[in-house]
Amino acid sequence: MTILDGKAAAADIKAEIAKEVARRTEQGLKRPHLAAILVGHDGGSETYVASKVKACGECGFDSTLIRLESTDDAPLSQDELMARVQELNDNPDIDGFIVQLPLPRHIDEQAVIEAIRPDKDVDGFHPVNVGRQSIGLPCFHSATPAGIVELLRRNGITTKGKRVVIVGRSNIVGKPLAAMLMQKGDMGDATVTVCHSATPNLVDVTRQADILVAAMGRPGFITADMVSDGVTVVDVGTTRVPDATRKSGFRLCGDVDFAAVSPKCEAITPVPGGVGPMTIVSLMMNTLEAARRHDANR
Amino acid sequence: MTILDGKAAAADIKAEIAKEVARRTEQGLKRPHLAAILVGHDGGSETYVASKVKACGECGFDSTLIRLESTDDAPLSQDELMARVQELNDNPDIDGFIVQLPLPRHIDEQAVIEAIRPDKDVDGFHPVNVGRQSIGLPCFHSATPAGIVELLRRNGITTKGKRVVIVGRSNIVGKPLAAMLMQKGDMGDATVTVCHSATPNLVDVTRQADILVAAMGRPGFITADMVSDGVTVVDVGTTRVPDATRKSGFRLCGDVDFAAVSPKCEAITPVPGGVGPMTIVSLMMNTLEAARRHDANR
Repeated sequence: MTILDGKAAAADIKAEIAKEVARRTEQGLKRPHLAAILVGHDGGSETYVASKVKACGECGFDSTLIRLESTDDAPLSQDELMARVQELNDNPDIDGFIVQLPLPRHIDEQAVIEAIRPDKDVDGFHPVNVGRQSIGLPCFHSATPAGIVELLRRNGITTKGKRVVIVGRSNIVGKPLAAMLMQKGDMGDATVTVCHSATPNLVDVTRQADILVAAMGRPGFITADMVSDGVTVVDVGTTRVPDATRKSGFRLCGDVDFAAVSPKCEAITPVPGGVGPMTIVSLMMNTLEAARRHDANR
Repeated sequence: MTILDGKAAAADIKAEIAKEVARRTEQGLKRPHLAAILVGHDGGSETYVASKVKACGECGFDSTLIRLESTDDAPLSQDELMARVQELNDNPDIDGFIVQLPLPRHIDEQAVIEAIRPDKDVDGFHPVNVGRQSIGLPCFHSATPAGIVELLRRNGITTKGKRVVIVGRSNIVGKPLAAMLMQKGDMGDATVTVCHSATPNLVDVTRQADILVAAMGRPGFITADMVSDGVTVVDVGTTRVPDATRKSGFRLCGDVDFAAVSPKCEAITPVPGGVGPMTIVSLMMNTLEAARRHDANR
Protein backbone atom coordinates (compact mmCIF):
# COMPACT_ATOMS: atom_id res chain seq x y z
CA MET A 1 0.00 0.00 0.00
CA THR A 2 1.38 3.36 -1.10
CA ILE A 3 0.71 6.56 0.79
CA LEU A 4 0.20 9.31 -1.78
CA ASP A 5 2.29 11.94 -0.05
CA GLY A 6 0.89 15.29 -1.11
CA LYS A 7 3.21 17.19 1.19
CA ALA A 8 6.31 15.73 -0.50
CA ALA A 9 4.91 16.19 -4.03
CA ALA A 10 3.95 19.76 -3.18
CA ALA A 11 7.48 20.46 -1.92
CA ASP A 12 8.92 19.11 -5.17
CA ILE A 13 6.59 21.24 -7.26
CA LYS A 14 7.28 24.38 -5.23
CA ALA A 15 11.03 23.80 -5.76
CA GLU A 16 10.42 23.40 -9.51
CA ILE A 17 8.37 26.58 -9.61
CA ALA A 18 11.03 28.48 -7.62
CA LYS A 19 13.65 27.43 -10.20
CA GLU A 20 11.40 28.65 -13.00
CA VAL A 21 10.87 31.96 -11.21
CA ALA A 22 14.64 32.33 -10.81
CA ARG A 23 15.04 31.74 -14.55
CA ARG A 24 12.34 34.34 -15.19
CA THR A 25 13.97 37.01 -13.05
CA GLU A 26 17.35 36.33 -14.70
CA GLN A 27 15.63 37.01 -18.03
CA GLY A 28 14.24 40.27 -16.69
CA LEU A 29 10.70 38.96 -16.38
CA LYS A 30 8.69 39.94 -13.32
CA ARG A 31 7.99 37.70 -10.37
CA PRO A 32 4.50 36.21 -10.47
CA HIS A 33 2.27 38.13 -8.05
CA LEU A 34 -0.71 36.53 -6.30
CA ALA A 35 -3.19 38.57 -4.29
CA ALA A 36 -5.80 37.23 -1.88
CA ILE A 37 -8.82 38.97 -0.42
CA LEU A 38 -9.79 37.67 3.01
CA VAL A 39 -13.08 38.84 4.48
CA GLY A 40 -13.53 38.48 8.23
CA HIS A 41 -11.74 36.01 10.49
CA ASP A 42 -13.06 32.49 9.80
CA GLY A 43 -10.56 30.07 11.33
CA GLY A 44 -10.32 27.75 8.34
CA SER A 45 -10.02 30.64 5.90
CA GLU A 46 -7.27 32.26 7.98
CA THR A 47 -5.31 29.00 7.88
CA TYR A 48 -5.77 28.47 4.14
CA VAL A 49 -4.80 32.03 3.24
CA ALA A 50 -1.74 31.88 5.51
CA SER A 51 -0.68 28.66 3.73
CA LYS A 52 -1.12 30.31 0.34
CA VAL A 53 0.95 33.35 1.35
CA LYS A 54 3.66 31.05 2.71
CA ALA A 55 3.66 29.00 -0.51
CA CYS A 56 4.08 32.20 -2.53
CA GLY A 57 7.26 32.91 -0.55
CA GLU A 58 8.57 29.39 -1.18
CA CYS A 59 7.92 29.78 -4.91
CA GLY A 60 9.57 33.18 -5.14
CA PHE A 61 6.26 34.91 -5.88
CA ASP A 62 5.21 38.30 -4.63
CA SER A 63 2.02 38.14 -2.61
CA THR A 64 -0.48 40.65 -1.31
CA LEU A 65 -3.03 39.89 1.36
CA ILE A 66 -5.99 42.25 1.50
CA ARG A 67 -7.98 41.95 4.70
CA LEU A 68 -11.49 43.30 4.78
CA GLU A 69 -13.42 43.44 8.02
CA SER A 70 -17.04 42.39 8.22
CA THR A 71 -18.99 42.15 11.45
CA ASP A 72 -22.68 41.95 12.32
CA ASP A 73 -22.54 45.60 13.36
CA ALA A 74 -20.51 46.75 10.36
CA PRO A 75 -21.02 44.28 7.52
CA LEU A 76 -18.81 44.64 4.44
CA SER A 77 -20.93 45.90 1.55
CA GLN A 78 -21.14 44.09 -1.77
CA ASP A 79 -20.09 47.33 -3.49
CA GLU A 80 -16.95 47.71 -1.39
CA LEU A 81 -15.90 44.12 -2.12
CA MET A 82 -16.64 44.51 -5.84
CA ALA A 83 -14.56 47.72 -5.87
CA ARG A 84 -11.61 45.82 -4.41
CA VAL A 85 -12.00 43.09 -7.03
CA GLN A 86 -12.02 45.76 -9.73
CA GLU A 87 -8.82 47.30 -8.36
CA LEU A 88 -7.08 43.93 -8.61
CA ASN A 89 -8.49 43.37 -12.11
CA ASP A 90 -7.03 46.72 -13.17
CA ASN A 91 -3.67 46.44 -11.40
CA PRO A 92 -1.13 45.28 -14.02
CA ASP A 93 1.29 44.06 -11.35
CA ILE A 94 -1.20 41.44 -10.08
CA ASP A 95 -1.05 38.27 -12.21
CA GLY A 96 -3.78 36.42 -10.40
CA PHE A 97 -5.94 36.72 -7.31
CA ILE A 98 -8.43 34.86 -5.24
CA VAL A 99 -11.29 35.83 -2.98
CA GLN A 100 -11.13 33.31 -0.15
CA LEU A 101 -14.43 31.47 0.23
CA PRO A 102 -16.80 31.15 1.97
CA LEU A 103 -17.90 34.79 2.11
CA PRO A 104 -20.33 36.17 4.72
CA ARG A 105 -23.87 35.14 3.92
CA HIS A 106 -25.07 38.64 3.02
CA ILE A 107 -22.58 38.76 0.12
CA ASP A 108 -23.58 37.45 -3.34
CA GLU A 109 -20.64 35.05 -3.77
CA GLN A 110 -21.36 34.20 -7.40
CA ALA A 111 -21.45 37.89 -8.39
CA VAL A 112 -18.00 38.30 -6.83
CA ILE A 113 -16.62 35.26 -8.67
CA GLU A 114 -18.00 36.51 -11.98
CA ALA A 115 -16.47 39.96 -11.41
CA ILE A 116 -12.95 38.49 -11.45
CA ARG A 117 -11.20 38.84 -14.81
CA PRO A 118 -11.00 35.30 -16.25
CA ASP A 119 -7.29 35.73 -17.05
CA LYS A 120 -6.61 36.49 -13.36
CA ASP A 121 -9.04 33.85 -12.00
CA VAL A 122 -6.37 31.46 -10.66
CA ASP A 123 -8.94 29.58 -8.55
CA GLY A 124 -10.62 28.59 -11.83
CA PHE A 125 -14.12 29.37 -10.49
CA HIS A 126 -15.26 31.86 -13.17
CA PRO A 127 -17.84 30.35 -15.57
CA VAL A 128 -15.50 31.01 -18.51
CA ASN A 129 -12.82 28.83 -16.95
CA VAL A 130 -15.35 26.19 -15.84
CA GLY A 131 -16.77 26.09 -19.36
CA ARG A 132 -13.38 25.98 -21.08
CA GLN A 133 -12.35 23.14 -18.77
CA SER A 134 -15.48 21.18 -19.66
CA ILE A 135 -14.91 21.72 -23.38
CA GLY A 136 -11.24 20.73 -23.02
CA LEU A 137 -9.71 24.12 -23.88
CA PRO A 138 -6.74 25.80 -22.17
CA CYS A 139 -7.96 27.35 -18.90
CA PHE A 140 -7.20 27.76 -15.24
CA HIS A 141 -8.20 24.42 -13.82
CA SER A 142 -9.98 24.39 -10.50
CA ALA A 143 -7.22 24.01 -7.91
CA THR A 144 -8.29 20.91 -5.98
CA PRO A 145 -9.07 18.73 -9.03
CA ALA A 146 -5.83 19.84 -10.71
CA GLY A 147 -3.93 18.98 -7.53
CA ILE A 148 -5.50 15.52 -7.39
CA VAL A 149 -4.61 14.81 -11.02
CA GLU A 150 -1.02 15.99 -10.47
CA LEU A 151 -0.65 13.84 -7.35
CA LEU A 152 -1.82 10.76 -9.24
CA ARG A 153 0.46 11.55 -12.18
CA ARG A 154 3.54 11.97 -9.98
CA ASN A 155 2.84 8.63 -8.36
CA GLY A 156 2.57 6.84 -11.70
CA ILE A 157 -1.17 6.22 -11.35
CA THR A 158 -2.81 6.47 -14.77
CA THR A 159 -6.50 7.08 -15.38
CA LYS A 160 -7.05 5.77 -18.92
CA GLY A 161 -9.71 3.08 -18.96
CA LYS A 162 -10.10 3.20 -15.16
CA ARG A 163 -13.44 3.32 -13.39
CA VAL A 164 -13.36 6.52 -11.35
CA VAL A 165 -16.12 7.06 -8.79
CA ILE A 166 -16.42 10.54 -7.31
CA VAL A 167 -18.62 10.92 -4.23
CA GLY A 168 -19.72 14.54 -3.99
CA ARG A 169 -20.84 16.94 -6.73
CA SER A 170 -19.57 20.31 -5.53
CA ASN A 171 -18.65 23.04 -8.00
CA ILE A 172 -15.08 23.18 -6.70
CA VAL A 173 -14.24 19.45 -6.54
CA GLY A 174 -16.68 16.82 -7.82
CA LYS A 175 -17.95 18.42 -11.00
CA PRO A 176 -14.66 19.89 -12.33
CA LEU A 177 -12.72 16.72 -11.44
CA ALA A 178 -15.25 14.65 -13.38
CA ALA A 179 -14.81 17.01 -16.35
CA MET A 180 -11.01 16.67 -16.24
CA LEU A 181 -10.91 12.89 -15.93
CA MET A 182 -13.38 12.23 -18.77
CA GLN A 183 -11.41 14.36 -21.29
CA LYS A 184 -9.47 12.68 -24.04
CA GLY A 185 -5.75 12.31 -23.48
CA ASP A 186 -3.11 12.02 -20.79
CA MET A 187 -4.59 11.79 -17.26
CA GLY A 188 -8.06 11.64 -18.80
CA ASP A 189 -9.90 8.86 -20.62
CA ALA A 190 -11.42 7.54 -17.40
CA THR A 191 -14.96 6.21 -17.11
CA VAL A 192 -16.30 8.61 -14.51
CA THR A 193 -19.33 8.22 -12.24
CA VAL A 194 -20.45 11.04 -9.95
CA CYS A 195 -22.40 9.99 -6.83
CA HIS A 196 -24.04 12.20 -4.22
CA SER A 197 -26.66 12.41 -1.50
CA ALA A 198 -29.41 11.25 -3.90
CA THR A 199 -27.53 8.07 -4.94
CA PRO A 200 -29.26 4.94 -3.62
CA ASN A 201 -27.15 1.87 -2.78
CA LEU A 202 -23.97 3.94 -2.84
CA VAL A 203 -21.87 0.97 -1.79
CA ASP A 204 -22.72 -0.86 -5.03
CA VAL A 205 -21.19 2.02 -6.99
CA THR A 206 -18.17 2.76 -4.82
CA ARG A 207 -17.14 -0.91 -4.87
CA GLN A 208 -16.76 -0.70 -8.66
CA ALA A 209 -14.14 2.02 -8.39
CA ASP A 210 -10.55 1.56 -9.48
CA ILE A 211 -10.06 5.10 -8.18
CA LEU A 212 -12.45 6.40 -5.50
CA VAL A 213 -12.57 10.12 -4.72
CA ALA A 214 -14.32 11.06 -1.48
CA ALA A 215 -15.38 14.69 -1.54
CA MET A 216 -18.57 15.16 0.40
CA GLY A 217 -17.27 16.59 3.68
CA ARG A 218 -18.59 13.85 5.98
CA PRO A 219 -15.83 12.64 8.32
CA GLY A 220 -15.09 8.91 8.10
CA PHE A 221 -18.04 8.28 5.75
CA ILE A 222 -16.19 5.84 3.47
CA THR A 223 -15.81 2.56 5.32
CA ALA A 224 -13.93 -0.63 4.45
CA ASP A 225 -17.01 -2.42 3.09
CA MET A 226 -17.47 0.35 0.51
CA VAL A 227 -14.25 -0.33 -1.41
CA SER A 228 -12.79 -3.24 -3.33
CA ASP A 229 -9.30 -4.65 -2.85
CA GLY A 230 -6.66 -2.83 -4.84
CA VAL A 231 -8.51 0.49 -5.04
CA THR A 232 -6.77 3.86 -5.10
CA VAL A 233 -8.49 6.24 -2.67
CA VAL A 234 -8.29 10.03 -2.81
CA ASP A 235 -9.65 11.72 0.32
CA VAL A 236 -10.63 15.36 -0.20
CA GLY A 237 -12.34 15.77 3.18
CA THR A 238 -10.87 18.26 5.67
CA THR A 239 -13.47 18.66 8.38
CA ARG A 240 -12.35 20.19 11.67
CA VAL A 241 -13.36 17.79 14.43
CA PRO A 242 -13.05 18.93 18.08
CA ASP A 243 -10.09 17.23 19.78
CA ALA A 244 -9.18 18.28 23.31
CA THR A 245 -5.79 16.52 23.07
CA ARG A 246 -4.60 18.99 20.40
CA LYS A 247 -3.25 22.42 21.15
CA SER A 248 -5.49 23.85 18.41
CA GLY A 249 -8.52 22.12 19.94
CA PHE A 250 -9.33 20.24 16.73
CA ARG A 251 -7.96 17.80 14.21
CA LEU A 252 -8.54 17.58 10.47
CA CYS A 253 -10.65 14.58 9.58
CA GLY A 254 -10.98 13.11 6.09
CA ASP A 255 -14.07 11.57 4.50
CA VAL A 256 -12.41 8.14 4.61
CA ASP A 257 -11.99 5.84 7.63
CA PHE A 258 -8.26 5.62 6.92
CA ALA A 259 -7.40 2.92 9.48
CA ALA A 260 -10.03 0.52 8.17
CA VAL A 261 -9.86 1.35 4.46
CA SER A 262 -6.12 1.72 3.85
CA PRO A 263 -5.27 -2.02 4.22
CA LYS A 264 -7.45 -2.73 1.14
CA CYS A 265 -5.84 0.02 -0.93
CA GLU A 266 -3.17 -0.04 -3.60
CA ALA A 267 -2.69 3.63 -2.81
CA ILE A 268 -4.37 6.22 -0.57
CA THR A 269 -3.99 9.88 0.32
CA PRO A 270 -3.62 10.78 4.01
CA VAL A 271 -5.44 13.66 5.75
CA PRO A 272 -3.71 15.96 6.40
CA GLY A 273 -0.80 15.88 3.97
CA GLY A 274 -2.59 14.51 0.90
CA VAL A 275 -4.86 16.60 -1.28
CA GLY A 276 -4.59 19.79 0.83
CA PRO A 277 -0.97 20.70 -0.03
CA MET A 278 -1.60 19.81 -3.69
CA THR A 279 -4.51 22.25 -3.84
CA ILE A 280 -2.23 25.06 -2.74
CA VAL A 281 0.49 24.23 -5.29
CA SER A 282 -2.15 24.08 -8.03
CA LEU A 283 -2.90 27.68 -7.18
CA MET A 284 0.82 28.44 -7.50
CA MET A 285 0.99 26.67 -10.87
CA ASN A 286 -2.02 28.67 -12.09
CA THR A 287 -0.39 31.91 -10.90
CA LEU A 288 2.84 31.09 -12.75
CA GLU A 289 0.79 30.33 -15.84
CA ALA A 290 -1.07 33.64 -15.46
CA ALA A 291 2.24 35.50 -15.27
CA ARG A 292 3.44 33.73 -18.43
CA ARG A 293 0.26 34.74 -20.27
CA HIS A 294 0.61 38.34 -19.08
CA ASP A 295 4.28 38.54 -20.21
CA ALA A 296 3.11 38.94 -23.78
CA ASN A 297 1.05 42.03 -22.92
CA ARG A 298 3.63 43.87 -20.85
CA MET B 1 -42.86 -0.55 -23.94
CA THR B 2 -43.44 3.17 -24.51
CA ILE B 3 -42.19 4.96 -27.60
CA LEU B 4 -40.92 8.37 -26.50
CA ASP B 5 -42.47 10.36 -29.32
CA GLY B 6 -40.28 13.42 -29.80
CA LYS B 7 -42.26 14.58 -32.81
CA ALA B 8 -45.49 14.74 -30.82
CA ALA B 9 -43.84 16.40 -27.81
CA ALA B 10 -42.15 18.91 -30.10
CA ALA B 11 -45.48 19.74 -31.73
CA ASP B 12 -47.02 20.36 -28.28
CA ILE B 13 -44.15 22.62 -27.26
CA LYS B 14 -44.23 24.59 -30.49
CA ALA B 15 -47.97 25.17 -29.95
CA GLU B 16 -47.28 26.35 -26.40
CA ILE B 17 -44.57 28.70 -27.63
CA ALA B 18 -46.83 30.06 -30.39
CA LYS B 19 -49.47 30.87 -27.74
CA GLU B 20 -46.86 32.67 -25.66
CA VAL B 21 -45.69 34.62 -28.73
CA ALA B 22 -49.31 35.62 -29.44
CA ARG B 23 -49.61 36.87 -25.86
CA ARG B 24 -46.36 38.80 -26.31
CA THR B 25 -47.47 40.53 -29.49
CA GLU B 26 -50.81 41.44 -27.88
CA GLN B 27 -48.80 43.13 -25.13
CA GLY B 28 -46.79 45.04 -27.70
CA LEU B 29 -43.65 42.97 -27.21
CA LYS B 30 -41.65 42.00 -30.28
CA ARG B 31 -41.64 38.57 -31.89
CA PRO B 32 -38.56 36.53 -30.95
CA HIS B 33 -36.12 36.61 -33.86
CA LEU B 34 -33.67 33.79 -34.55
CA ALA B 35 -30.90 34.08 -37.13
CA ALA B 36 -28.79 31.26 -38.55
CA ILE B 37 -25.53 31.44 -40.46
CA LEU B 38 -25.07 28.56 -42.89
CA VAL B 39 -21.68 28.18 -44.56
CA GLY B 40 -21.52 26.08 -47.73
CA HIS B 41 -23.95 23.33 -48.74
CA ASP B 42 -23.44 20.31 -46.49
CA GLY B 43 -26.50 18.09 -46.92
CA GLY B 44 -27.09 17.47 -43.21
CA SER B 45 -26.59 21.13 -42.34
CA GLU B 46 -29.03 22.23 -45.07
CA THR B 47 -31.66 19.90 -43.62
CA TYR B 48 -31.11 20.99 -40.02
CA VAL B 49 -31.22 24.70 -40.84
CA ALA B 50 -34.34 24.25 -42.95
CA SER B 51 -36.01 22.49 -40.00
CA LYS B 52 -35.03 25.33 -37.70
CA VAL B 53 -36.41 27.98 -40.05
CA LYS B 54 -39.64 25.99 -40.38
CA ALA B 55 -39.91 25.67 -36.59
CA CYS B 56 -39.51 29.44 -36.25
CA GLY B 57 -42.54 29.87 -38.49
CA GLU B 58 -44.58 27.40 -36.42
CA CYS B 59 -43.66 29.26 -33.23
CA GLY B 60 -44.47 32.69 -34.65
CA PHE B 61 -40.83 33.78 -34.58
CA ASP B 62 -39.11 35.92 -37.14
CA SER B 63 -36.16 34.14 -38.72
CA THR B 64 -33.22 35.18 -40.86
CA LEU B 65 -31.05 32.76 -42.79
CA ILE B 66 -27.65 34.07 -43.79
CA ARG B 67 -25.96 31.92 -46.42
CA LEU B 68 -22.23 32.28 -46.89
CA GLU B 69 -20.51 30.52 -49.75
CA SER B 70 -17.23 28.70 -49.26
CA THR B 71 -15.58 26.59 -51.93
CA ASP B 72 -12.08 25.19 -52.41
CA ASP B 73 -11.46 27.92 -54.97
CA ALA B 74 -13.00 30.72 -52.93
CA PRO B 75 -12.92 29.73 -49.28
CA LEU B 76 -14.80 31.92 -46.80
CA SER B 77 -12.31 33.81 -44.65
CA GLN B 78 -12.32 33.69 -40.87
CA ASP B 79 -12.52 37.50 -40.81
CA GLU B 80 -15.59 37.59 -43.04
CA LEU B 81 -17.38 35.05 -40.84
CA MET B 82 -16.37 36.87 -37.65
CA ALA B 83 -17.67 40.13 -39.15
CA ARG B 84 -21.06 38.50 -39.79
CA VAL B 85 -21.14 37.22 -36.21
CA GLN B 86 -20.37 40.74 -34.97
CA GLU B 87 -23.20 42.19 -37.05
CA LEU B 88 -25.65 39.77 -35.44
CA ASN B 89 -24.22 40.54 -31.99
CA ASP B 90 -24.83 44.25 -32.60
CA ASN B 91 -28.26 43.96 -34.24
CA PRO B 92 -30.84 44.70 -31.52
CA ASP B 93 -33.61 43.00 -33.48
CA ILE B 94 -31.87 39.61 -33.32
CA ASP B 95 -32.61 37.85 -30.03
CA GLY B 96 -30.48 34.81 -30.67
CA PHE B 97 -28.47 33.22 -33.44
CA ILE B 98 -26.59 30.10 -34.34
CA VAL B 99 -23.70 29.31 -36.65
CA GLN B 100 -24.58 25.90 -38.07
CA LEU B 101 -21.79 23.38 -37.39
CA PRO B 102 -19.65 21.80 -38.70
CA LEU B 103 -17.77 24.64 -40.39
CA PRO B 104 -15.25 24.10 -43.21
CA ARG B 105 -11.99 22.76 -41.83
CA HIS B 106 -9.99 25.93 -42.50
CA ILE B 107 -12.22 27.88 -40.09
CA ASP B 108 -11.36 28.07 -36.37
CA GLU B 109 -14.73 26.86 -35.10
CA GLN B 110 -14.03 27.56 -31.42
CA ALA B 111 -13.06 31.19 -32.17
CA VAL B 112 -16.41 31.63 -33.93
CA ILE B 113 -18.33 30.12 -31.01
CA GLU B 114 -16.53 32.37 -28.52
CA ALA B 115 -17.27 35.46 -30.67
CA ILE B 116 -21.02 34.99 -30.16
CA ARG B 117 -22.45 37.18 -27.41
CA PRO B 118 -23.38 34.80 -24.57
CA ASP B 119 -26.84 36.38 -24.23
CA LYS B 120 -27.53 35.54 -27.91
CA ASP B 121 -25.86 32.10 -27.82
CA VAL B 122 -29.06 30.05 -28.09
CA ASP B 123 -27.10 26.90 -29.00
CA GLY B 124 -25.50 27.12 -25.53
CA PHE B 125 -22.00 26.40 -26.90
CA HIS B 126 -20.17 29.49 -25.56
CA PRO B 127 -17.88 28.67 -22.60
CA VAL B 128 -19.84 31.09 -20.40
CA ASN B 129 -23.04 29.11 -20.97
CA VAL B 130 -21.24 25.76 -20.64
CA GLY B 131 -19.68 26.92 -17.37
CA ARG B 132 -22.90 28.35 -15.98
CA GLN B 133 -24.68 25.09 -16.83
CA SER B 134 -22.03 23.08 -14.99
CA ILE B 135 -22.26 25.35 -11.94
CA GLY B 136 -26.06 25.14 -12.02
CA LEU B 137 -26.75 28.82 -12.83
CA PRO B 138 -29.35 30.18 -15.27
CA CYS B 139 -27.99 29.78 -18.82
CA PHE B 140 -28.82 28.69 -22.32
CA HIS B 141 -28.69 24.93 -22.03
CA SER B 142 -27.15 23.03 -24.89
CA ALA B 143 -30.07 22.17 -27.17
CA THR B 144 -29.83 18.37 -27.46
CA PRO B 145 -29.39 17.67 -23.72
CA ALA B 146 -32.19 20.11 -22.89
CA GLY B 147 -34.40 18.38 -25.45
CA ILE B 148 -33.68 14.96 -23.95
CA VAL B 149 -34.50 16.16 -20.44
CA GLU B 150 -37.75 17.75 -21.65
CA LEU B 151 -38.79 14.58 -23.51
CA LEU B 152 -38.23 12.48 -20.38
CA ARG B 153 -40.11 14.99 -18.23
CA ARG B 154 -43.12 15.08 -20.54
CA ASN B 155 -43.29 11.29 -20.47
CA GLY B 156 -43.24 11.17 -16.66
CA ILE B 157 -39.78 9.62 -16.51
CA THR B 158 -37.94 10.98 -13.47
CA THR B 159 -34.17 10.95 -13.00
CA LYS B 160 -33.74 11.28 -9.23
CA GLY B 161 -31.75 8.38 -7.85
CA LYS B 162 -31.55 6.71 -11.28
CA ARG B 163 -28.36 5.26 -12.74
CA VAL B 164 -27.83 7.14 -15.99
CA VAL B 165 -25.16 5.86 -18.37
CA ILE B 166 -24.18 8.15 -21.23
CA VAL B 167 -22.12 6.61 -24.03
CA GLY B 168 -20.24 9.40 -25.80
CA ARG B 169 -18.46 12.45 -24.36
CA SER B 170 -19.01 15.13 -26.99
CA ASN B 171 -19.15 18.79 -26.05
CA ILE B 172 -22.66 19.13 -27.46
CA VAL B 173 -24.33 16.02 -25.99
CA GLY B 174 -22.47 13.77 -23.56
CA LYS B 175 -20.71 16.29 -21.36
CA PRO B 176 -23.49 18.89 -21.01
CA LEU B 177 -26.16 16.18 -20.49
CA ALA B 178 -24.06 14.67 -17.69
CA ALA B 179 -23.80 18.14 -16.12
CA MET B 180 -27.57 18.66 -16.27
CA LEU B 181 -28.55 15.27 -14.88
CA MET B 182 -26.14 15.40 -11.91
CA GLN B 183 -27.43 18.80 -10.71
CA LYS B 184 -29.55 19.02 -7.61
CA GLY B 185 -33.29 19.28 -8.15
CA ASP B 186 -36.06 18.42 -10.55
CA MET B 187 -34.88 16.31 -13.53
CA GLY B 188 -31.43 16.09 -11.92
CA ASP B 189 -30.18 14.08 -8.92
CA ALA B 190 -29.18 11.15 -11.14
CA THR B 191 -26.05 9.07 -10.61
CA VAL B 192 -24.34 9.70 -13.94
CA THR B 193 -21.61 7.68 -15.64
CA VAL B 194 -19.99 8.85 -18.88
CA CYS B 195 -18.51 6.12 -21.10
CA HIS B 196 -16.54 6.52 -24.33
CA SER B 197 -14.09 4.88 -26.71
CA ALA B 198 -11.55 4.34 -23.89
CA THR B 199 -14.04 2.47 -21.66
CA PRO B 200 -13.14 -1.23 -21.36
CA ASN B 201 -15.94 -3.78 -20.86
CA LEU B 202 -18.55 -1.25 -21.89
CA VAL B 203 -21.33 -3.81 -21.62
CA ASP B 204 -20.72 -4.16 -17.86
CA VAL B 205 -21.46 -0.46 -17.48
CA THR B 206 -24.36 -0.10 -19.89
CA ARG B 207 -26.18 -3.02 -18.27
CA GLN B 208 -26.30 -1.08 -15.01
CA ALA B 209 -28.25 1.75 -16.60
CA ASP B 210 -31.78 2.64 -15.60
CA ILE B 211 -31.54 5.25 -18.36
CA LEU B 212 -29.08 4.65 -21.22
CA VAL B 213 -28.16 7.50 -23.56
CA ALA B 214 -26.43 6.48 -26.78
CA ALA B 215 -24.56 9.42 -28.29
CA MET B 216 -21.45 8.25 -30.09
CA GLY B 217 -22.58 8.32 -33.70
CA ARG B 218 -22.05 4.64 -34.48
CA PRO B 219 -25.13 3.16 -36.16
CA GLY B 220 -26.67 0.19 -34.35
CA PHE B 221 -23.82 0.02 -31.82
CA ILE B 222 -26.05 -0.65 -28.78
CA THR B 223 -27.25 -4.25 -29.01
CA ALA B 224 -29.74 -6.20 -26.90
CA ASP B 225 -27.06 -7.84 -24.74
CA MET B 226 -25.87 -4.40 -23.64
CA VAL B 227 -29.04 -3.40 -21.79
CA SER B 228 -31.01 -4.75 -18.85
CA ASP B 229 -34.73 -5.40 -18.86
CA GLY B 230 -36.82 -2.35 -18.03
CA VAL B 231 -34.26 0.20 -19.20
CA THR B 232 -35.18 3.54 -20.74
CA VAL B 233 -33.11 4.14 -23.88
CA VAL B 234 -32.45 7.54 -25.46
CA ASP B 235 -30.92 7.31 -28.93
CA VAL B 236 -29.10 10.47 -30.04
CA GLY B 237 -27.54 8.95 -33.17
CA THR B 238 -28.54 10.32 -36.56
CA THR B 239 -26.08 8.88 -39.04
CA ARG B 240 -27.01 8.98 -42.72
CA VAL B 241 -26.74 5.45 -44.06
CA PRO B 242 -26.98 4.90 -47.84
CA ASP B 243 -30.31 3.33 -48.77
CA ALA B 244 -31.15 2.83 -52.44
CA THR B 245 -34.84 2.18 -51.62
CA ARG B 246 -35.29 5.80 -50.38
CA LYS B 247 -35.90 8.73 -52.66
CA SER B 248 -33.22 10.71 -50.73
CA GLY B 249 -30.75 7.83 -51.18
CA PHE B 250 -30.20 7.46 -47.43
CA ARG B 251 -31.98 6.78 -44.16
CA LEU B 252 -31.24 8.13 -40.67
CA CYS B 253 -29.80 5.45 -38.43
CA GLY B 254 -29.61 5.67 -34.63
CA ASP B 255 -26.87 4.32 -32.37
CA VAL B 256 -29.27 1.67 -31.03
CA ASP B 257 -30.35 -1.56 -32.73
CA PHE B 258 -34.00 -0.61 -32.21
CA ALA B 259 -35.59 -3.89 -33.33
CA ALA B 260 -33.50 -5.98 -30.96
CA VAL B 261 -33.25 -3.56 -28.01
CA SER B 262 -36.78 -2.14 -27.84
CA PRO B 263 -38.48 -5.35 -26.55
CA LYS B 264 -36.34 -5.10 -23.38
CA CYS B 265 -37.18 -1.43 -22.82
CA GLU B 266 -39.65 0.30 -20.53
CA ALA B 267 -39.33 3.24 -22.92
CA ILE B 268 -37.23 4.12 -25.96
CA THR B 269 -36.83 7.00 -28.41
CA PRO B 270 -37.19 6.22 -32.13
CA VAL B 271 -34.86 7.52 -34.87
CA PRO B 272 -36.06 9.61 -36.57
CA GLY B 273 -38.78 11.30 -34.51
CA GLY B 274 -37.18 11.05 -31.08
CA VAL B 275 -34.38 13.33 -29.93
CA GLY B 276 -34.05 15.23 -33.22
CA PRO B 277 -37.31 17.21 -33.07
CA MET B 278 -36.70 17.91 -29.37
CA THR B 279 -33.32 19.45 -30.17
CA ILE B 280 -34.97 21.91 -32.52
CA VAL B 281 -37.66 22.93 -30.03
CA SER B 282 -34.97 23.43 -27.37
CA LEU B 283 -33.48 26.01 -29.69
CA MET B 284 -36.91 27.64 -29.95
CA MET B 285 -37.29 27.64 -26.15
CA ASN B 286 -33.85 29.25 -25.80
CA THR B 287 -34.77 31.88 -28.39
CA LEU B 288 -38.00 32.73 -26.55
CA GLU B 289 -35.99 32.99 -23.32
CA ALA B 290 -33.45 35.27 -25.06
CA ALA B 291 -36.27 37.53 -26.23
CA ARG B 292 -37.64 37.69 -22.68
CA ARG B 293 -34.23 38.67 -21.32
CA HIS B 294 -33.83 41.34 -23.99
CA ASP B 295 -37.30 42.83 -23.28
CA ALA B 296 -35.88 44.53 -20.21
CA ASN B 297 -33.21 46.35 -22.23
CA ARG B 298 -35.40 47.61 -25.05
